[in-house]
Amino acid sequence: MAADEVGEFERIRRFFAPLAGPGGLGLSDDAALVECAPGHRLVVTADAIVAGVHYLPDDPPDLVARKLLRVNLSDLAAMGARPLHYLLTTALPPELGPDWFARFASGLAEDQRRYGIDLLGGDSVGTGGPAVLSLTAIGEVIAGEEIRRGGAKPADLVWVSGTVGDAFLGLALLRGAYPDLAAWDRAHLIRRFQLPDPRTELGPRLCGLASAMIDISDGLLADLRHICETSEVAAVVEMGLLPLSPSARSVVGSKADMLPRLAGAGDDYELLFAAPVGATEAIISLSSSVDIPVTRIGSIHAGTGVRLVDADGRPVPVEATGYRHF
Amino acid sequence: MAADEVGEFERIRRFFAPLAGPGGLGLSDDAALVECAPGHRLVVTADAIVAGVHYLPDDPPDLVARKLLRVNLSDLAAMGARPLHYLLTTALPPELGPDWFARFASGLAEDQRRYGIDLLGGDSVGTGGPAVLSLTAIGEVIAGEEIRRGGAKPADLVWVSGTVGDAFLGLALLRGAYPDLAAWDRAHLIRRFQLPDPRTELGPRLCGLASAMIDISDGLLADLRHICETSEVAAVVEMGLLPLSPSARSVVGSKADMLPRLAGAGDDYELLFAAPVGATEAIISLSSSVDIPVTRIGSIHAGTGVRLVDADGRPVPVEATGYRHF
Repeated sequence: MAADEVGEFERIRRFFAPLAGPGGLGLSDDAALVECAPGHRLVVTADAIVAGVHYLPDDPPDLVARKLLRVNLSDLAAMGARPLHYLLTTALPPELGPDWFARFASGLAEDQRRYGIDLLGGDSVGTGGPAVLSLTAIGEVIAGEEIRRGGAKPADLVWVSGTVGDAFLGLALLRGAYPDLAAWDRAHLIRRFQLPDPRTELGPRLCGLASAMIDISDGLLADLRHICETSEVAAVVEMGLLPLSPSARSVVGSKADMLPRLAGAGDDYELLFAAPVGATEAIISLSSSVDIPVTRIGSIHAGTGVRLVDADGRPVPVEATGYRHF
Repeated sequence: MAADEVGEFERIRRFFAPLAGPGGLGLSDDAALVECAPGHRLVVTADAIVAGVHYLPDDPPDLVARKLLRVNLSDLAAMGARPLHYLLTTALPPELGPDWFARFASGLAEDQRRYGIDLLGGDSVGTGGPAVLSLTAIGEVIAGEEIRRGGAKPADLVWVSGTVGDAFLGLALLRGAYPDLAAWDRAHLIRRFQLPDPRTELGPRLCGLASAMIDISDGLLADLRHICETSEVAAVVEMGLLPLSPSARSVVGSKADMLPRLAGAGDDYELLFAAPVGATEAIISLSSSVDIPVTRIGSIHAGTGVRLVDADGRPVPVEATGYRHF
């Protein structure tokens, strides 16, 4: 772990060195060591977030840390990889003091325990602008079993884990929408936005079952489009099959125009995957054994594009979709 | 490679996808794949730089890219690792247009060829503040042959590659110092500051020879102190043995007080290492075969601390040292 000021050395010693695993060498060497089990490949991904863009500067630092970690773990899960390690680089404004760091590091520590991962290293620098936090996550997968975006085939079914649209509604609530919603529903939806639940248990177990997979960050339909473009296929999603949480149902109620918006909503970090019909029984059994719901929402076809259809198979118009910043 | 705007997708497609290697999967998947050769470990390191802190906003973008890449490759070399891949996350202000990106990417492309590495992925986000560029480099080393900071032993000799102090003088020149220096010397020293030459050929070949190694970023004496603290030994550096470039000699001339300052100067990205006396012949032969000078500058002893001494063995006082920002 590098550092550019004496204060940064102290910061690393106090807050980050306790998070380091054996390969991190106490964050006191030039680089870290990563073992790779025979017959495995490593899987790496990096994501950056910016204060005021991807999170609010006064969001709880522990939640900011955990969300940054979890969106990266979600990318690993979407490849079928088991998470192992991460590196963290922080560019932070001078006004963030030890309290901020202590809470930020406590969030990392909590999720390290939860996901069985450790810190390998990184960098800590100052900036006169908003905080920029960048994380590189490293996982492993049995060589050849990684799940790519390009393997979907016509006649495959399309599945999604958990529920969709919660994070979109959570962000809307933070912006003041739906003031009459019950406190429990508010808390649930906001939590889903602030702290996604990466499907690290489900993803690796889909190796050998799913033909293509992605995690929902840009939006369900947009991310399915990524699969279709890479796989050179088309997909149809049945709007009535989209799994909604009870809290999302409370918001949607009888507003029929909300469903297409939720189909386009991002930030849920659920797994969206295609699988041959023959894998259906194994997928349902897996869902039960890891206690994560998976729902069939559509199918893959020859052609191009992604269509959302109603119960009668008629196309439903969809607004421009994708990730929405503050 | 993730992206948070349609413009970012286009940016990735145009400028970064051509830099991707096979494991980067065209930057179109959730994560990248890294093969690890049997009997090897991967070595990972990350560094971040901030516009206005670590480089000037109007520095040539290709040089900024190459310096960012090279300081990370220097960290790999200091572990004895051969470079393989990197991930890049950029947080950039909106005023940086396609010209800036094209030049930034051309710098990466040039150094990818030079060092035989490729891009695996990363992220590209916007910021309202100064640019923050973060790079994670991945290399490999034969398992157990990695060179750590903690292996220096009393009676080992201390060696340094190349020349020291050039980058410090180059930065001083950029700040207006030494206006009478010859143009050739100016160009050489500024180049050494703007574009370090990571010792990727030398580092891996020191496996089995060096007992401890670090690259000079904080400053020769400060970095030697890192080795001594981790190895629980002391070191003596003979000021008269410090290797200076002809251009640095032109600046130093007869100013005796300059030498201790150069001993404390950082940013040279040379390799600083300890090795048993018995390795001397092999080190000199290696230096000749890779055509990179190495110079014995001191020795390791029992005890603590790092002392700079003159030709008579008398301690030379040294100012506070370490990396200097703009």
